[in-house]
Amino acid sequence: MRVVLLAGGVGGAKMAEGLSAIVGRDLTVIVNTGDDLELHGLAVWPDHDTVAYTLAGLDDEVRGWGVRGESWTVMDRLEALGEPEWFRLGDRDLATHLWRTDRLRAGGRPTEVALELGAAMGIESRILPMADEPVRTEVLTDEGWLEFQEYFVHRHQEPTVREVRFRGVESADSTPEVVAAIAHANVLVIAPSNPLVSIDPILAVPGIRSSLDEARARDTPMVAVSGIIGGKALKGPADRMLASLGEEASALGVARRYASLISHFVLDRVDASSEGAVRELGLETLVTDTIMTDDAARTRLANEILGFVTTPSVG
Amino acid sequence: MRVVLLAGGVGGAKMAEGLSAIVGRDLTVIVNTGDDLELHGLAVWPDHDTVAYTLAGLDDEVRGWGVRGESWTVMDRLEALGEPEWFRLGDRDLATHLWRTDRLRAGGRPTEVALELGAAMGIESRILPMADEPVRTEVLTDEGWLEFQEYFVHRHQEPTVREVRFRGVESADSTPEVVAAIAHANVLVIAPSNPLVSIDPILAVPGIRSSLDEARARDTPMVAVSGIIGGKALKGPADRMLASLGEEASALGVARRYASLISHFVLDRVDASSEGAVRELGLETLVTDTIMTDDAARTRLANEILGFVTTPSVG
Repeated sequence: MRVVLLAGGVGGAKMAEGLSAIVGRDLTVIVNTGDDLELHGLAVWPDHDTVAYTLAGLDDEVRGWGVRGESWTVMDRLEALGEPEWFRLGDRDLATHLWRTDRLRAGGRPTEVALELGAAMGIESRILPMADEPVRTEVLTDEGWLEFQEYFVHRHQEPTVREVRFRGVESADSTPEVVAAIAHANVLVIAPSNPLVSIDPILAVPGIRSSLDEARARDTPMVAVSGIIGGKALKGPADRMLASLGEEASALGVARRYASLISHFVLDRVDASSEGAVRELGLETLVTDTIMTDDAARTRLANEILGFVTTPSVG
Repeated sequence: MRVVLLAGGVGGAKMAEGLSAIVGRDLTVIVNTGDDLELHGLAVWPDHDTVAYTLAGLDDEVRGWGVRGESWTVMDRLEALGEPEWFRLGDRDLATHLWRTDRLRAGGRPTEVALELGAAMGIESRILPMADEPVRTEVLTDEGWLEFQEYFVHRHQEPTVREVRFRGVESADSTPEVVAAIAHANVLVIAPSNPLVSIDPILAVPGIRSSLDEARARDTPMVAVSGIIGGKALKGPADRMLASLGEEASALGVARRYASLISHFVLDRVDASSEGAVRELGLETLVTDTIMTDDAARTRLANEILGFVTTPSVG
């Protein structure tokens, strides 16, 4: 079974790990690149790397990002040289950025570099950037437009978000690898990532939305997992962002956002009372435990989801 | 007293430290760039950095190169990703290369980047690359032409050197900073570095040799310190290289190489018997202990040298 997962950072990585445990090399993860940035001259891809470290078994599960057993020697020295320190890169993480930046500067296409990196890290599944052209997520706050990491890391998500835009996305294009992966998928999954800044950038890439619509027209099931549980984001500012943008910070609100695209929706047991409303949107529903606390929970959820979307509806 | 030092790596760094202790901000070190290389996409300047770490008090005196208290986390991870490992960059050292490469990519002139780095490291003296254009030292061996670091680090200086060339040096040019430093110097010093691959590249830069000749025509004293003691190089392959190139691996041989350029020459006590022959080359001589084992020895030697060249000859 060929599975394509649209993913942001941590929620996407956990979902990817569960799916990878089941379908392995038949999983393709399309990752958000809107959070990417250049730091100290290095190409830093936070969402890609969170997924990659998780699939390579290198992720720091306690901290929730970066590489396990990380040290900070290079960063401490860069700070001693007067470099800005708000986005700290660990030593092991830095090796990834160095490796990647060297190949990108030599002319490698981001998608090819990502596939080569995945192979070097021994990752069985494929991780594809959503586009090869740079796309940069920016948020409008009372202080004006901020680059995403400026808002997310430097300002600790404190400014209220009034608007989100994906700079450069009009000139980006879906890659042949992404288009082919979607075209050949048996199942399409939207991870429980932030809908506004992790999934929306992927959907905004010209060619991706139309590829997904074509897949749906061929009756390829597409399932989204709510990243909002009991009105709260498990991690990150998705709930506050939805509220400040005038949307509903709830599983139902997430289902409404995706309703025109998807066929299936997964809610946590906490939100079971919304199941009826989600079904009224024309979606099949699965109510289950969606908090992926450990490897077993990730695999269990992935199995449930794949069973859910590939079982003919009785409704 | 304004002092200009022509320097390679370790010998140059020790001489620089002694002179810096005496004249401080009035010392300008012109460093060989022929050993520079690009590794993992980073601009690595071995001779520059050896001098810089020494003047910043960060040098590893036991190992003789790199930064004290170094760790190798990034390198270990790069190797795990399949990167070549023959030239290992430490974590603290890597911060220097990252810092520099970022500024060079942004369009900074190497000389400006070096001066900015020196300031960031709190170094009082100035360190100037011999040229802003890339010059690459290569050695002809029985296996053909090898890049310098390939010969020096990767092949452990084992292949016999038949010829040395400085690729790109014809298109290099002396910088305004180097020309001004030489023009305003009261004393010019050639460090006890490898004459063939540390000092010759500097002298081969168009404009530097003529600037030095003009300084000599104004009677600016120029002193060289022999890096060959008792027929042996204290460090590195200078003695073997001189021999395989058909030159004399001795203090007298070094004096002969520099005789047309310099006014003064410093020999170790071990080579006292050569003093007469060196004087016959028309050079003033100082015989003293030239092995700079510790800070005190470096400062003592620097003091002796500055006294030697600024005292009118009685001969």
